[in-house]
Amino acid sequence: MTFSGISPFDYRYLRDKKLAEKVAPFLSEEARIGYQLKVECAVAKGLARVGACTRGVADEIIAAAAEVTAKEVYEEEDRIQHDIRALVNCIRKRLGGEAKPFVHLGVTSSDIINTADAMRYREFTGSSLLPSLLELERTLIRIARTEKATLQIGRTHGQHAEPITFGFALTEYVSRLGGRILALAESAGNLRGKMSGAVGAYNALALITDNAETFEAYVLDELGLKPATHATQIVEPEYLLDYVHCVVAAFGVIANLADDMRHLQRTELAEIGESFGDEQVGSSTMPHKRNPVNFENVKSMWKAMMPRMITLYADQISEHQRDLTNSASGRFVPELLAGLLVAAERMQRTMQKLAVDREQMRRNVERSKSRIITEPLYVLLAVYGCPDAHEAVRRLTLLEKPILEALEQDAALVPYYAKFTPQQKEILEHPETYTGRAAEKTEAVCSYWETMLSQ
Amino acid sequence: MTFSGISPFDYRYLRDKKLAEKVAPFLSEEARIGYQLKVECAVAKGLARVGACTRGVADEIIAAAAEVTAKEVYEEEDRIQHDIRALVNCIRKRLGGEAKPFVHLGVTSSDIINTADAMRYREFTGSSLLPSLLELERTLIRIARTEKATLQIGRTHGQHAEPITFGFALTEYVSRLGGRILALAESAGNLRGKMSGAVGAYNALALITDNAETFEAYVLDELGLKPATHATQIVEPEYLLDYVHCVVAAFGVIANLADDMRHLQRTELAEIGESFGDEQVGSSTMPHKRNPVNFENVKSMWKAMMPRMITLYADQISEHQRDLTNSASGRFVPELLAGLLVAAERMQRTMQKLAVDREQMRRNVERSKSRIITEPLYVLLAVYGCPDAHEAVRRLTLLEKPILEALEQDAALVPYYAKFTPQQKEILEHPETYTGRAAEKTEAVCSYWETMLSQ
Amino acid sequence: MTFSGISPFDYRYLRDKKLAEKVAPFLSEEARIGYQLKVECAVAKGLARVGACTRGVADEIIAAAAEVTAKEVYEEEDRIQHDIRALVNCIRKRLGGEAKPFVHLGVTSSDIINTADAMRYREFTGSSLLPSLLELERTLIRIARTEKATLQIGRTHGQHAEPITFGFALTEYVSRLGGRILALAESAGNLRGKMSGAVGAYNALALITDNAETFEAYVLDELGLKPATHATQIVEPEYLLDYVHCVVAAFGVIANLADDMRHLQRTELAEIGESFGDEQVGSSTMPHKRNPVNFENVKSMWKAMMPRMITLYADQISEHQRDLTNSASGRFVPELLAGLLVAAERMQRTMQKLAVDREQMRRNVERSKSRIITEPLYVLLAVYGCPDAHEAVRRLTLLEKPILEALEQDAALVPYYAKFTPQQKEILEHPETYTGRAAEKTEAVCSYWETMLSQ
Amino acid sequence: MTFSGISPFDYRYLRDKKLAEKVAPFLSEEARIGYQLKVECAVAKGLARVGACTRGVADEIIAAAAEVTAKEVYEEEDRIQHDIRALVNCIRKRLGGEAKPFVHLGVTSSDIINTADAMRYREFTGSSLLPSLLELERTLIRIARTEKATLQIGRTHGQHAEPITFGFALTEYVSRLGGRILALAESAGNLRGKMSGAVGAYNALALITDNAETFEAYVLDELGLKPATHATQIVEPEYLLDYVHCVVAAFGVIANLADDMRHLQRTELAEIGESFGDEQVGSSTMPHKRNPVNFENVKSMWKAMMPRMITLYADQISEHQRDLTNSASGRFVPELLAGLLVAAERMQRTMQKLAVDREQMRRNVERSKSRIITEPLYVLLAVYGCPDAHEAVRRLTLLEKPILEALEQDAALVPYYAKFTPQQKEILEHPETYTGRAAEKTEAVCSYWETMLSQ
Repeated sequence: MTFSGISPFDYRYLRDKKLAEKVAPFLSEEARIGYQLKVECAVAKGLARVGACTRGVADEIIAAAAEVTAKEVYEEEDRIQHDIRALVNCIRKRLGGEAKPFVHLGVTSSDIINTADAMRYREFTGSSLLPSLLELERTLIRIARTEKATLQIGRTHGQHAEPITFGFALTEYVSRLGGRILALAESAGNLRGKMSGAVGAYNALALITDNAETFEAYVLDELGLKPATHATQIVEPEYLLDYVHCVVAAFGVIANLADDMRHLQRTELAEIGESFGDEQVGSSTMPHKRNPVNFENVKSMWKAMMPRMITLYADQISEHQRDLTNSASGRFVPELLAGLLVAAERMQRTMQKLAVDREQMRRNVERSKSRIITEPLYVLLAVYGCPDAHEAVRRLTLLEKPILEALEQDAALVPYYAKFTPQQKEILEHPETYTGRAAEKTEAVCSYWETMLSQ
Repeated sequence: MTFSGISPFDYRYLRDKKLAEKVAPFLSEEARIGYQLKVECAVAKGLARVGACTRGVADEIIAAAAEVTAKEVYEEEDRIQHDIRALVNCIRKRLGGEAKPFVHLGVTSSDIINTADAMRYREFTGSSLLPSLLELERTLIRIARTEKATLQIGRTHGQHAEPITFGFALTEYVSRLGGRILALAESAGNLRGKMSGAVGAYNALALITDNAETFEAYVLDELGLKPATHATQIVEPEYLLDYVHCVVAAFGVIANLADDMRHLQRTELAEIGESFGDEQVGSSTMPHKRNPVNFENVKSMWKAMMPRMITLYADQISEHQRDLTNSASGRFVPELLAGLLVAAERMQRTMQKLAVDREQMRRNVERSKSRIITEPLYVLLAVYGCPDAHEAVRRLTLLEKPILEALEQDAALVPYYAKFTPQQKEILEHPETYTGRAAEKTEAVCSYWETMLSQ
Repeated sequence: MTFSGISPFDYRYLRDKKLAEKVAPFLSEEARIGYQLKVECAVAKGLARVGACTRGVADEIIAAAAEVTAKEVYEEEDRIQHDIRALVNCIRKRLGGEAKPFVHLGVTSSDIINTADAMRYREFTGSSLLPSLLELERTLIRIARTEKATLQIGRTHGQHAEPITFGFALTEYVSRLGGRILALAESAGNLRGKMSGAVGAYNALALITDNAETFEAYVLDELGLKPATHATQIVEPEYLLDYVHCVVAAFGVIANLADDMRHLQRTELAEIGESFGDEQVGSSTMPHKRNPVNFENVKSMWKAMMPRMITLYADQISEHQRDLTNSASGRFVPELLAGLLVAAERMQRTMQKLAVDREQMRRNVERSKSRIITEPLYVLLAVYGCPDAHEAVRRLTLLEKPILEALEQDAALVPYYAKFTPQQKEILEHPETYTGRAAEKTEAVCSYWETMLSQ
Repeated sequence: MTFSGISPFDYRYLRDKKLAEKVAPFLSEEARIGYQLKVECAVAKGLARVGACTRGVADEIIAAAAEVTAKEVYEEEDRIQHDIRALVNCIRKRLGGEAKPFVHLGVTSSDIINTADAMRYREFTGSSLLPSLLELERTLIRIARTEKATLQIGRTHGQHAEPITFGFALTEYVSRLGGRILALAESAGNLRGKMSGAVGAYNALALITDNAETFEAYVLDELGLKPATHATQIVEPEYLLDYVHCVVAAFGVIANLADDMRHLQRTELAEIGESFGDEQVGSSTMPHKRNPVNFENVKSMWKAMMPRMITLYADQISEHQRDLTNSASGRFVPELLAGLLVAAERMQRTMQKLAVDREQMRRNVERSKSRIITEPLYVLLAVYGCPDAHEAVRRLTLLEKPILEALEQDAALVPYYAKFTPQQKEILEHPETYTGRAAEKTEAVCSYWETMLSQ
């Protein structure tokens, strides 16, 4: 019963069955052992292929491995205190004398562990993580397009700046998330395995076959992987490091989106809102509360996961042909991956039902009309040759009157103002039209990423 | 079945029943909810005490709370999407109409959550963590005393420096761990609760009682806690921050000890060793291997846990009277605490059976006799007035002959050397006696910490 | 010319002379060497005291040390590649033959370095850091008191919750900063030195005096320090670790304050503002902008400094009697300390001139009157025995009418409502009075910290 | 005078003139401002190109910009409190009335800052960082090839495992560093600029030209950059994030190399050594010490720099179209880059003069002959059909006699042993030949990276 455990993932964040089905087949301990068994099977096939054993022996090993359970392996490990030897014993005890010697022959524990991890992280990425991120990306593209002309005030420093559209604001995340999806796919595709023994020099394999590197390439190819360019007892850590960096960086993008939404939902801004169930309670004491709990959860998960990247950087350092101080720490990597999936799915669910209050967005622009105007005014004055336009306009803003009125009373500026075209004056009268290329850029960036990600 | 989960704690590091019994009653999700129920009971008692409800009502609430299970609370949360309101509903549904209104009356979710966490972390520390650390400390003191006169070469920069004793080397950890135990006890004792409502100003409680702060103090006192000096919706984060800092800092001490032992077990040093079971396998391919797997595991766990301190520092920042972005992240704190316990217990088990090879320690000193000698020689030359003793000795070490021989041939140095007492010359002949105050300091520091920690 | 350097501290954040004067005497490289010279002088005095040399020799060393400059030490280091031996040589070359042997006699580089750092960090804290933090604390107390009755909406999750006062909101920071000041003072006071030689066992000193520990205590006492309980080549790292933790934790409090102010200055909230100079430019292109640049700067500095705590935790691990991998990293500690000072001074300057818009605060409360009301309404209904008050009020909030109107039309609730006292009904009519104990708590907490910090 | 500053880079690690020349032109504050001036010039050219001003105006601006100094910009900033407007003013004050309006017209501060940073980081990488890393790589390849047949014991868990060659051990770093060089080059080449105004929608530029995106592309192309796919006020943070990740990851590889060397230099291992100058002092009190100070320094710098990656991840989050909380923190990025250069140069210098003790390496292998033998023995027994070879050999190692002797006395194993070829028996007699494919792999990997990096 999971509530007796201490992992928030297992008792809470992966309680949902659909989510668990996206995670457990790759990241659970059962899955870990399952993938290791697959690697042992590929080793057996490889031994048969190079003639070290018969194909029949390999088939016997494969059949035996299919029966091994995580529970059984753990019980054997309790006895002998070595996880991979325990796994090997669980296969071996099902075999006849002829096949027995060939399980795990010529390889080392890390050959199995590193290769299995590369494989399962890659398959998790391809089967679960990228589909979830792509679904979120499609949702963002859909909303960005729908809202590409929805006027919104641009905010810098928390202050009203110049107007944009809400679609343009979301396009930031379409673009950043799109980039992270590509990076994740690439780095997951570059996870590597190894099959080169205890110190990486194929010492044992060279006793068995004259073509140890060919054997390695064959076994890994069976599993859909390439060998590391070089290995000691373990694969070079940078393949995994790059991949986890991409995971953390993608998490950062989603956290920023969550943070922006959180702030847009502030009572005073009120431009968007999480939808709220009829039975949902917002606060245990304030019955009216409608809190951005999903956005908050995503940011909080990011704070819990992101610092773990330090562990990966620290694990780059392993003494000589390897010390084991990256072993326990490496067992926590799946949590980081699951964390991103959980956050992506939550964002997808929440964004999909996002309530957008266009009227409120327009009202928020309205109240800053007099401020918005200063940038186009300064730029146009400069275009028409006013030498100190920025300073002139800055000083106008210090006066206690409407800025166009102040402008018309400023003898030094009037000559430049007189040159403005009617269209340009129109922008000053209706600064809410001063959205530059927001709508077009929204469309262009969304199309770009649709194309990039459909390949 | 835990192997379907992804948490290394739940499927692996807390699999041992004895360990689980030290952790689950405080840090599991069941425990979390159990402590929250205790807090709700204390609130009910408090309400009765200030006359808001009858003592009978409070007793009814207490009886109802005793029946509530984690599973039930989660099912209710699935319906209404609010964890504490779900807990409240689970109590309420067991009550008659008179008692119903008084569950959770006047308080907010964080009053319950923060207070329950302070309580369970404190009790975990007192009942599990400190006893484990103290047992390790006693083991270290025992070995330090046994080995207080065991000659060992002191190493700086990985280079042989001057001789010490192995007991003295361990005393470093007696002292550092002793300090951390005191700091942990103090910071755990300073974890605080609150009972001041949604924004910390006792708004709701002030409707119920004229003495809201007294009510708060009473409820918390029931639970063995003090109120935070000030609170918003949440307790000031620094009480927990200081406590977790002490956890992480204690972990660092244990990790350093593990690291030292790991290196002393290197094949070439071979001064100590983890004991090894008869059935234990060291390597899946190298049958002879005896690896420092427990020491490696401890360091690895430290690398996995330590960076999480960043999450706590980041959670110092909560907007206004509180945003919720410290909620999910806060759920991972128990893992950090459990991590330290797991590491402490493992170190205790391993150190307790530590194999110390005194002969090898002596051999390692032997091979550096000619190097050790330089410091006492330089110091004694200086004591007797040689103006450039350090440089003179440094130059002697560049010659290709035994240093005492070189000394006796150095006309400039001979006059100072002539003044050395027989006892001083003895040290130069037998530099292995040049251990300063190692043995006495070992005894003194061990006694100091025994006294400090027995209070 | 500093602009050719790469350190933002040296070319930018410490450019202000007054700031530089608070930092350079303790944290500059000149200061570092200056403090090391002080330690060498204390060693000389100690040697004289135990009779190893004459008082005249010690005086000669002290006089020589007074002349040594950083530049000179660096030039000597360039020659011999050892920083402390270079320092020693710079003293020695000024001495006659009798005094020469006694510089640095019996001690090791880390005795000097660790002790000097403990001393200068402690003096920096006492002379610069704590005064700055206390000035900020006093400013916060002053504003909190002035604004203790200034109505403000409490915000949780970015949503309007229940009303407080602005003074109460600031009191959070009075309390948290107060606590950090005490913790900083305590941890700085607990920084320790050592004088126990190359491997911590007083090997060399024991050649010179029978009372090596007494010598150590005397030398450190001269410098206002106590010895570490135990040392290897270096002082136990936890004294410094605890101190830097307090620095980082204090930084977190200030960063949270900055963040809150930043958000309160958002265009839509507009409750407070940084004051702005007449000549100050807010944006290079938007002449109207008034950005919270100081608050942003403080948060940004926190993001730059806080993660460096990881370096300190990593430096807890030093192999055997010490490896040198904490040496370069230790040179960056002063930046962290300076960072906090810079941030504290900036906050002090900014808060001191804080513009508070009480009218806007009141307007923000006004717009949430209908929401605020729900908590007191639910609580009072419960107090009068309504069994499902929270749920009843939550359902009222889903109706599209004023909540009191809805209440009066709800047959089930009316009987409870009828029991409300006039005073209680008054709160529902004027929920802006529903500020609980905000004003009283403000006063009490401010007074508490004034007392605590004046001791 | 730099010793009055607090930055270890400026007073110490960049004191060397040659190093400073590789850093200052790109990473100093002078350089920062210099690059910003280049960007302003490109803007002026762009304005001329789209017809907003004359080419003469652009030339006047370019000429003026060439005269501006960092000192002057800082003085103007002191007056107006805005760095980029100060820069603009310094250009403008040198211009006639016709040119004045066109400086910085239509763009925002971040257009200049982000673009200048992308440019200078890229040029630093191309001109300084990659050349240094490549030189180190070439040194490693050279030593790896020279030592490709030098027998060394492979070490896992600090324990002797199976033999390799020292060249093969170094090849690990050839490969990992090679991979990082490619990643760094790619990520530096992907740093992007922007020229899209205050909120990223080209609001102001659209007033000036119908082809704002074309203008952007033109200006950036002038500077050798591409535009970000999307921008708000700032460039998407992930371009820089990926680049700094590559910096930190490269640092990790170098730190691991340093760590390995450090350990190989341990007194007991003594396989390699840093060369030591004649005048160099190893310890202020132990005249004989030869410490791995350069290797220690590199690891220490890594500990100081690596955690700063957290700042970059935290800076992924910027509210809405940008808050400024990544501004001060962004100013520390150059230190991280300089840190890697400093470490790479130091490693290059140290490795270039590495003393390799082949005899000692052979001696270290010798002492583990009896242990090495177990893997080939187990593998060969298995190859010849022994069903429990691993366990059989593990049990042999528990006996107190030479393993081959024990083998010959084991009735169950003798039949398999009889099948061994003479060549296979030779390996058991001379396990030092059991180096697998170490030499060939060394050659192949070195050649691979030579080819990859020469492109």
